[in-house]
Amino acid sequence: MPHADAIPAELLARAGRIRLACFDVDGTLTDGRLYFDADGREMKAFHVLDGQGLVLLRKAGIEVALVTARDSAAAAHRARDLGVRAHIGIGDKRACVEALAGELGITLEQVAFMGDDLPDIAVMRAVGFAVVPANVHAWTREHAHWCTQARGGEGAARELCDLLLTAQGHLDALLSPAGSA
Amino acid sequence: MPHADAIPAELLARAGRIRLACFDVDGTLTDGRLYFDADGREMKAFHVLDGQGLVLLRKAGIEVALVTARDSAAAAHRARDLGVRAHIGIGDKRACVEALAGELGITLEQVAFMGDDLPDIAVMRAVGFAVVPANVHAWTREHAHWCTQARGGEGAARELCDLLLTAQGHLDALLSPAGSA
Amino acid sequence: MPHADAIPAELLARAGRIRLACFDVDGTLTDGRLYFDADGREMKAFHVLDGQGLVLLRKAGIEVALVTARDSAAAAHRARDLGVRAHIGIGDKRACVEALAGELGITLEQVAFMGDDLPDIAVMRAVGFAVVPANVHAWTREHAHWCTQARGGEGAARELCDLLLTAQGHLDALLSPAGSA
Amino acid sequence: MPHADAIPAELLARAGRIRLACFDVDGTLTDGRLYFDADGREMKAFHVLDGQGLVLLRKAGIEVALVTARDSAAAAHRARDLGVRAHIGIGDKRACVEALAGELGITLEQVAFMGDDLPDIAVMRAVGFAVVPANVHAWTREHAHWCTQARGGEGAARELCDLLLTAQGHLDALLSPAGSA
Repeated sequence: MPHADAIPAELLARAGRIRLACFDVDGTLTDGRLYFDADGREMKAFHVLDGQGLVLLRKAGIEVALVTARDSAAAAHRARDLGVRAHIGIGDKRACVEALAGELGITLEQVAFMGDDLPDIAVMRAVGFAVVPANVHAWTREHAHWCTQARGGEGAARELCDLLLTAQGHLDALLSPAGSA
Repeated sequence: MPHADAIPAELLARAGRIRLACFDVDGTLTDGRLYFDADGREMKAFHVLDGQGLVLLRKAGIEVALVTARDSAAAAHRARDLGVRAHIGIGDKRACVEALAGELGITLEQVAFMGDDLPDIAVMRAVGFAVVPANVHAWTREHAHWCTQARGGEGAARELCDLLLTAQGHLDALLSPAGSA
Repeated sequence: MPHADAIPAELLARAGRIRLACFDVDGTLTDGRLYFDADGREMKAFHVLDGQGLVLLRKAGIEVALVTARDSAAAAHRARDLGVRAHIGIGDKRACVEALAGELGITLEQVAFMGDDLPDIAVMRAVGFAVVPANVHAWTREHAHWCTQARGGEGAARELCDLLLTAQGHLDALLSPAGSA
Repeated sequence: MPHADAIPAELLARAGRIRLACFDVDGTLTDGRLYFDADGREMKAFHVLDGQGLVLLRKAGIEVALVTARDSAAAAHRARDLGVRAHIGIGDKRACVEALAGELGITLEQVAFMGDDLPDIAVMRAVGFAVVPANVHAWTREHAHWCTQARGGEGAARELCDLLLTAQGHLDALLSPAGSA
């Protein structure tokens, strides 16, 4: 993440407004792999860098939610582990995010959504900051304001967190001896 | 996936005829890894992009089947998860696919098969559209009509799905606001 | 794997003599990852391409053994799955392989060993054909006759299998319609 | 790892003093992936190359400790597997490492710490040799004396082990026929 001075002004403006950051799960907070065992039980791999980013967003006063179509117990457990909201088995992500924004008393311009495939397009078109990971499906990419350098499940979400933290002036506190202790 | 105009005519013709898409599992719908735990129980990793593609094929009226030699409970569970047919522990994949085509009342010209290793060659030589992932075993590659850019278990199957959907004119509906909702 | 004519003569000669192929497990038949769960139970990922290669070696009359220092139930299960010998928890790999060769009535010149780290050096120096995967530890590489292009757990063992099968004239049968059925 | 003659003098001096090597876990001894199953149980993947390095350090008389903020049973099991110290669920890594050094009667100049993210910066600034893996978070990298070529969980820790063993003159013994048996 470059210094704030080196970030394009429009990107900085979008990131500066965000009060709620929403993340798709499979392919965004994971590399898209769905591990099935012999009993049909499902496992998925989250990344420690992303988790650290989500926790830092919360500390900086930015609300965080996982929003996934898949009915996944693993995603619910990861959300609990990080202390963030989880909306699991969501058929209409746009309606879910609109309801969340309403509940928080913010506009959709103040919402960021990160997703990677067709079911994310409708909500990406509705929010103020639509972000995709490097491994986004091609037909979805064109609906994003920003594409991270990292792939989903390998730090893509952290890149968005770092951008939001930088744009909202939390960087110095984070990197001070006390902040990183 | 480029626009239909940019796809070679022969490829478009093969893809346009397909009514049944069959997929090998290990190395094709997975990256080939077989996870063994201390009890000898087996796990494998499917990809959310591929699953989305298989579901879209079904919605577009193209039949989907997993066809694997390995006796794998995980593959059966993934097929059930996606609502597609599973033929597990198949010694003769060609005979299995011929029977499936017969049952559906279609010719082998209307069948696509995606596989990655020697046991897939016989069925690949029999069907109208033989596809391999980027990580195909070298001796198998030459029997394919098309090789995807993605590796098995990392979106290779989705590439085939996207090609079939494009060739059969489903793209506009998929990418309309309603289609991607 | 190139045609036999394109393989260096010395490599072809070494490969042509092999009657027993021995494989280290972690880092050679796997990518080196040891998955630990919350109960300390261990999982590891084998590759379907490698398994297919080991089965083809057996069919071609070449004996196969896994030889690992680690006391791993997962490796024992994978060996049983493939129908090959497993020597698990082996402190002295060289002595183990020498005993195996004696039991089979062959010389060490007729043995191939594939390994990737310091504990494999002694046995690699003793056998007729010492092979390492692309991800071999640097201090071990110089003791190998051949280094595969693939990494351990991603088809490195299959490369050795393909070389042995090619050098011993089994390629045409494998690739005939019947052989690949 | 190059021969000692080819290693920069300052690096060799830092590495030569180390009596205790401490390792963060997630992202350093693993690739950062946290696998969650449907019950919320957590798994992580260590690497056999790193484990071998940690065992060699112990044999060479260098103390080894895992120091992680995350409350992870898997990390405790891996430490027990390798016979090294584990400090799990550590809120203040710097205080933990200072206490360890005190217990061993050594100075912080004689301690190496390898980490990859913001919570590691404070301890990295305190010790004599601060090391990061190739996949380190950008804001943490600048606090390191050395960055390995390998990524966390893929041999980064082994690179540090090899450097310490080389700098302290253990290489010839390791690579002698007896040493590698």
